[in-house]
Amino acid sequence: MLLKERIPWKYVLGKIRYELLIILVYTGIIAFLYEDYHIKHFTIPLAVPMILGTVLSLLLAFRSNQSYDRWWEARIIWGAIVNDSRTLTRQLLSFTGNGNVEEPVEVWRRKFIHRQIAWCYSLGQSLRRKDALQGLDRLLSKKELEHLKHYDNKPSAILDLHGRDLVALLQNGWVNEYQQVALDSTLTRLCDSMGKSERIKNTVFPATYSMYIHFAMLFFIVLLPFGFLEVFGYVTIPMVTMIAASFLLIEKMAIHLQDPFENKPTDTPVTTIARGIEKDLKQLLRDQQVTLPELPATEKYYVL
Amino acid sequence: MLLKERIPWKYVLGKIRYELLIILVYTGIIAFLYEDYHIKHFTIPLAVPMILGTVLSLLLAFRSNQSYDRWWEARIIWGAIVNDSRTLTRQLLSFTGNGNVEEPVEVWRRKFIHRQIAWCYSLGQSLRRKDALQGLDRLLSKKELEHLKHYDNKPSAILDLHGRDLVALLQNGWVNEYQQVALDSTLTRLCDSMGKSERIKNTVFPATYSMYIHFAMLFFIVLLPFGFLEVFGYVTIPMVTMIAASFLLIEKMAIHLQDPFENKPTDTPVTTIARGIEKDLKQLLRDQQVTLPELPATEKYYVL
Amino acid sequence: MLLKERIPWKYVLGKIRYELLIILVYTGIIAFLYEDYHIKHFTIPLAVPMILGTVLSLLLAFRSNQSYDRWWEARIIWGAIVNDSRTLTRQLLSFTGNGNVEEPVEVWRRKFIHRQIAWCYSLGQSLRRKDALQGLDRLLSKKELEHLKHYDNKPSAILDLHGRDLVALLQNGWVNEYQQVALDSTLTRLCDSMGKSERIKNTVFPATYSMYIHFAMLFFIVLLPFGFLEVFGYVTIPMVTMIAASFLLIEKMAIHLQDPFENKPTDTPVTTIARGIEKDLKQLLRDQQVTLPELPATEKYYVL
Amino acid sequence: MLLKERIPWKYVLGKIRYELLIILVYTGIIAFLYEDYHIKHFTIPLAVPMILGTVLSLLLAFRSNQSYDRWWEARIIWGAIVNDSRTLTRQLLSFTGNGNVEEPVEVWRRKFIHRQIAWCYSLGQSLRRKDALQGLDRLLSKKELEHLKHYDNKPSAILDLHGRDLVALLQNGWVNEYQQVALDSTLTRLCDSMGKSERIKNTVFPATYSMYIHFAMLFFIVLLPFGFLEVFGYVTIPMVTMIAASFLLIEKMAIHLQDPFENKPTDTPVTTIARGIEKDLKQLLRDQQVTLPELPATEKYYVL
Amino acid sequence: MLLKERIPWKYVLGKIRYELLIILVYTGIIAFLYEDYHIKHFTIPLAVPMILGTVLSLLLAFRSNQSYDRWWEARIIWGAIVNDSRTLTRQLLSFTGNGNVEEPVEVWRRKFIHRQIAWCYSLGQSLRRKDALQGLDRLLSKKELEHLKHYDNKPSAILDLHGRDLVALLQNGWVNEYQQVALDSTLTRLCDSMGKSERIKNTVFPATYSMYIHFAMLFFIVLLPFGFLEVFGYVTIPMVTMIAASFLLIEKMAIHLQDPFENKPTDTPVTTIARGIEKDLKQLLRDQQVTLPELPATEKYYVL
Repeated sequence: MLLKERIPWKYVLGKIRYELLIILVYTGIIAFLYEDYHIKHFTIPLAVPMILGTVLSLLLAFRSNQSYDRWWEARIIWGAIVNDSRTLTRQLLSFTGNGNVEEPVEVWRRKFIHRQIAWCYSLGQSLRRKDALQGLDRLLSKKELEHLKHYDNKPSAILDLHGRDLVALLQNGWVNEYQQVALDSTLTRLCDSMGKSERIKNTVFPATYSMYIHFAMLFFIVLLPFGFLEVFGYVTIPMVTMIAASFLLIEKMAIHLQDPFENKPTDTPVTTIARGIEKDLKQLLRDQQVTLPELPATEKYYVL
Repeated sequence: MLLKERIPWKYVLGKIRYELLIILVYTGIIAFLYEDYHIKHFTIPLAVPMILGTVLSLLLAFRSNQSYDRWWEARIIWGAIVNDSRTLTRQLLSFTGNGNVEEPVEVWRRKFIHRQIAWCYSLGQSLRRKDALQGLDRLLSKKELEHLKHYDNKPSAILDLHGRDLVALLQNGWVNEYQQVALDSTLTRLCDSMGKSERIKNTVFPATYSMYIHFAMLFFIVLLPFGFLEVFGYVTIPMVTMIAASFLLIEKMAIHLQDPFENKPTDTPVTTIARGIEKDLKQLLRDQQVTLPELPATEKYYVL
Repeated sequence: MLLKERIPWKYVLGKIRYELLIILVYTGIIAFLYEDYHIKHFTIPLAVPMILGTVLSLLLAFRSNQSYDRWWEARIIWGAIVNDSRTLTRQLLSFTGNGNVEEPVEVWRRKFIHRQIAWCYSLGQSLRRKDALQGLDRLLSKKELEHLKHYDNKPSAILDLHGRDLVALLQNGWVNEYQQVALDSTLTRLCDSMGKSERIKNTVFPATYSMYIHFAMLFFIVLLPFGFLEVFGYVTIPMVTMIAASFLLIEKMAIHLQDPFENKPTDTPVTTIARGIEKDLKQLLRDQQVTLPELPATEKYYVL
Repeated sequence: MLLKERIPWKYVLGKIRYELLIILVYTGIIAFLYEDYHIKHFTIPLAVPMILGTVLSLLLAFRSNQSYDRWWEARIIWGAIVNDSRTLTRQLLSFTGNGNVEEPVEVWRRKFIHRQIAWCYSLGQSLRRKDALQGLDRLLSKKELEHLKHYDNKPSAILDLHGRDLVALLQNGWVNEYQQVALDSTLTRLCDSMGKSERIKNTVFPATYSMYIHFAMLFFIVLLPFGFLEVFGYVTIPMVTMIAASFLLIEKMAIHLQDPFENKPTDTPVTTIARGIEKDLKQLLRDQQVTLPELPATEKYYVL
Repeated sequence: MLLKERIPWKYVLGKIRYELLIILVYTGIIAFLYEDYHIKHFTIPLAVPMILGTVLSLLLAFRSNQSYDRWWEARIIWGAIVNDSRTLTRQLLSFTGNGNVEEPVEVWRRKFIHRQIAWCYSLGQSLRRKDALQGLDRLLSKKELEHLKHYDNKPSAILDLHGRDLVALLQNGWVNEYQQVALDSTLTRLCDSMGKSERIKNTVFPATYSMYIHFAMLFFIVLLPFGFLEVFGYVTIPMVTMIAASFLLIEKMAIHLQDPFENKPTDTPVTTIARGIEKDLKQLLRDQQVTLPELPATEKYYVL
């Protein structure tokens, strides 16, 4: 997630530098031919690019809106993961008895909640196509790690471990039957959030949609200088470049918003969220001091 | 689902080739009459097609949006099918006991989960109006296949089998009463997803809506050359063709998005999703090696 | 619901024939005065109707969108009725025991499920302001029909009968307490769907909204010929008629979409949906041959 | 709720009569100066108000959309109140036994359901800032009325009475524990609907949003005559008035839609809905003759 | 929340005074050069800023819409907090017995409900980054306050205390097992509302989106005077300033709506809502006189 401030210009313009360079050269050549060689019969009325500009603006605005909705949905899903992780913890702690509980329960709780924290990290890393178990040895036992290696979908396998552990809980009589079903429905919600994240990750934004808008935009930019020459002469070059930059940046922004799990600065900050969950859950477990692992150093204008 | 890359131009333009050909010929004749026979009194000011262009852009943008929403809803429904298939499996495995269970339970679980996988394939094939039971003999018993033949709506009949089996589960005492109700509510969600898919499949996008937009677009394209001739001369031909292509492609895209179960490259990839479910569920069942049936060979720019 | 094809032109244009006739005459008179009597000082620049055209397009586009949402919501509600009818049947069949059950249970089930089918027909007919009990004597007993006559809201009274019957089910010990509550919550969802349908039926789309858009459109059409005369002469007549037709048809379409239970070809096809439910539910009941009553003959381009 | 027909022109135009009068005078003076005193150097090109007109149309269209959403949400909430009132009644009637029940149960049911009807009226009146208990002595006992006087939020206090009565139900053994929880969750939904209505009532539509759009519109109307004078002369006066009227009416409509509980003709018809609930619920109670209190006489073009 | 009336102009214009000053000076210099030094060759056709104006209007309209949605979502979340606080209270009061209850229950209820009120204040203050426990000593016991100091996320810790207290309730036999699960699911909803508020607070509105729109707007304003000079001369100065003000104010409004927990006049009025909850809940507890703490004095045109 980009932060509000300190986004360097280099980052912003870097994304469209090749496009801008080409446009600069292209418009430059046209302006040069027009002004210095007086090849003037190819100017067109401004109304022609304007028709295209209107359609394009509309499509781009709707597309930004749809991308924004995907991005916001991703954020809502991860918000739900925060909520359900806390709920799971609160339910476990309150269902298995208050105050001083027996040690096996205490140990079991700690194991379960640490595994829940691990699940959050693991899901985030797996969505970003990184090693889903990296750095989780501090939260999972060796046996669990060994077991998880056999599965392709690690986060799903962790939830499966959760589910099996809940049975033990009932069999030991630590929760009653209603409580087990209530815990199970919290697991179901976590499973839904996992599936929804995967859906956003795996569903390509309609490829033809992106393509048509992209080509309409190129067509618009190609026409633009011919409409501007008569009015602006050499000033056409910065004008076209700036208008093209506006359109290109809006498109790039939409592309970034529509894919929120790509290990990029514009991502949903899943690592930061998982760390927040770790802190909250450990405090609820009444850990004396919560020490979180250090974050990998990143630039200051975004969090991952 | 079209993939991000490698969509061949042939595919993209092939969808509108007849339309483009007609427009090319039509504009060509008009330009020829104008330029070579000097029949000039039928040019019109650009403002006339522009009024239509604005209305059209708006309607097309809204329509794309509605089609996109249908497409995305279809994808959400199939995402829910993934989630609820996993949830059903997790519930079955954890409710019927952890660790070493008796053999009848083990056999029963395997049968049930294989039937759930079969349901996913069956629903996808039935939505695409293909044989709903094709290739499912590896997942269903002969008796079940025989039974299903009597039903028109195969996926609904499979869920009915699920429902009847759950009773046996309770009667055998393998799950308690709350757990049965929890399992039943997972079935209810699957039944909802099935019904929602059928709703999208069976509901024609308002026919008059499509029609009016289509005819407004034809009217706009018919007018366009008359507005361009004065400015562009023979260049009118490629210009009109390209602008018409932009509009036609946006409309085609909307048409594809609005019907996501048509056995076309733009479909919701129900087969791919069902295979993903098969892999996940079999791994949760701890099958040693999960072997999936081979996919029918398709072009590389989409998955079905 | 209009089908994709074969919508006759007569149907489409018939809806606006009086409006088009008036516009034709009106534009004809103006063009005649302009061309033959050379009363020319009342032409106006095209920009004036264009301002109105833009506002109008926007409002019309948003309004179509809201009408579409109402139409789609109506369809979603009837999709939910399909799903919950199936769920109710599955729950009844699986909760009251699998395989060979005692005859009273068998009889009771059949009565209940037939009544559920009757409810679907009854709700559809009541939304269309037709006799809500017409043709339901093949699904309901005489006693039930007699009882229902005392109620204004027949579908609500049928659900009340359902509710009372569920008590008998519990009192006879055919379902347990959890199962009764699960069945009751399915009834609650059916009751919600009924209420939602009635809400759409009974809520007039904001009357002033429709009115203002309608008058803005009339004002726009009245101005249009004055802007076109200078450019088009007598061609103004077909041009204005076609542009007016585009706007009028979009408005008509919105009006049809916003009221989806009017016994018109553009309706939500509640009869067809109820027939589908009847077929599904009877097959789940394992009726040997499902015979549905004949449909009243309608034109081929829509289903009711 | 305004009905579809018979909305008198006086009502429609009455809302903007002062604005229209001022605009008429203002435009008249400008046209007079222009035509008769030939003060002509202050005309401006039409393009200037057009820029503003486009922005304004967009903002107004979005704003209408948001107002419509508020209005529709209010209607959905009251639809849910209808559904949950019916559900509550069905649950009470079926949970406390079918057929001939003992008299205390009968009495208790009648009291409870009459109180539910009273709650609907009371909520509607309280949202409209009228006496929340007015006319409810026919539905509530004296003791209850006395008790309610101590509370500021009457509808909330009625739900509290409901809640306390449900305990008695369980203590008397008339419902079992699951049924009590099911009834309680229906109460929770009613409580949600009440809170949602209050949210819409108490949340001012963003004041700066309304203000900015209003001033942009005034600015647009002030500029408009200067753009029209050259073309229209004295015809500017009706033209500007009509265009201004279109914009002003759309804004007024948005303002009415966004506040749906103001005791105005454009309100959500909460009294009519409450009467519908009274009729339904009393029929379900099998009252021999349902007599509803007379409605206060209102004009014929709306229901309250 | 800004109230409907009495918003002082100083407040409205104060937000953009620096921007307006700069624009005033900038346009003034250009107009001066044009009118008095006759440097005239840098005027441009109005159509150029109009293209940009259209795109900008669209993006701004969509962006306002998204900001409005965030603001409205925040209000919905706090509406849900009101509802669930009331529901929690109703459930506690009715589940733990009606009429005269034993004193320990009475004391326990009072403590729990006071803590719930405290949670509402605490969440609001924590979202505004103020001391989350300030002023809560009148609602929480010293022991609780002491305990909460160890946690970073105070509202989450208060919910944890709620959860642990519910266990005691079950262990003492004051509620049965179903009722405990029902209460727990109310806590889960409160926990969800807390998480959703934090999500809105912590998620930066896509920074590049805001930035691109902002720079496109600056570019548009910079171009504007050149398009107006020819038409307006010195009148360009107020014209440009007013048009720029419209755009800048719309943008500012969007920025305020998108961050609804900033301790500003445009905030969701969380303190006012929490006070309303305090009043309602204390009345349900049948406190004789509910005295609320005094509000800090604020200006009269908003509530916090």
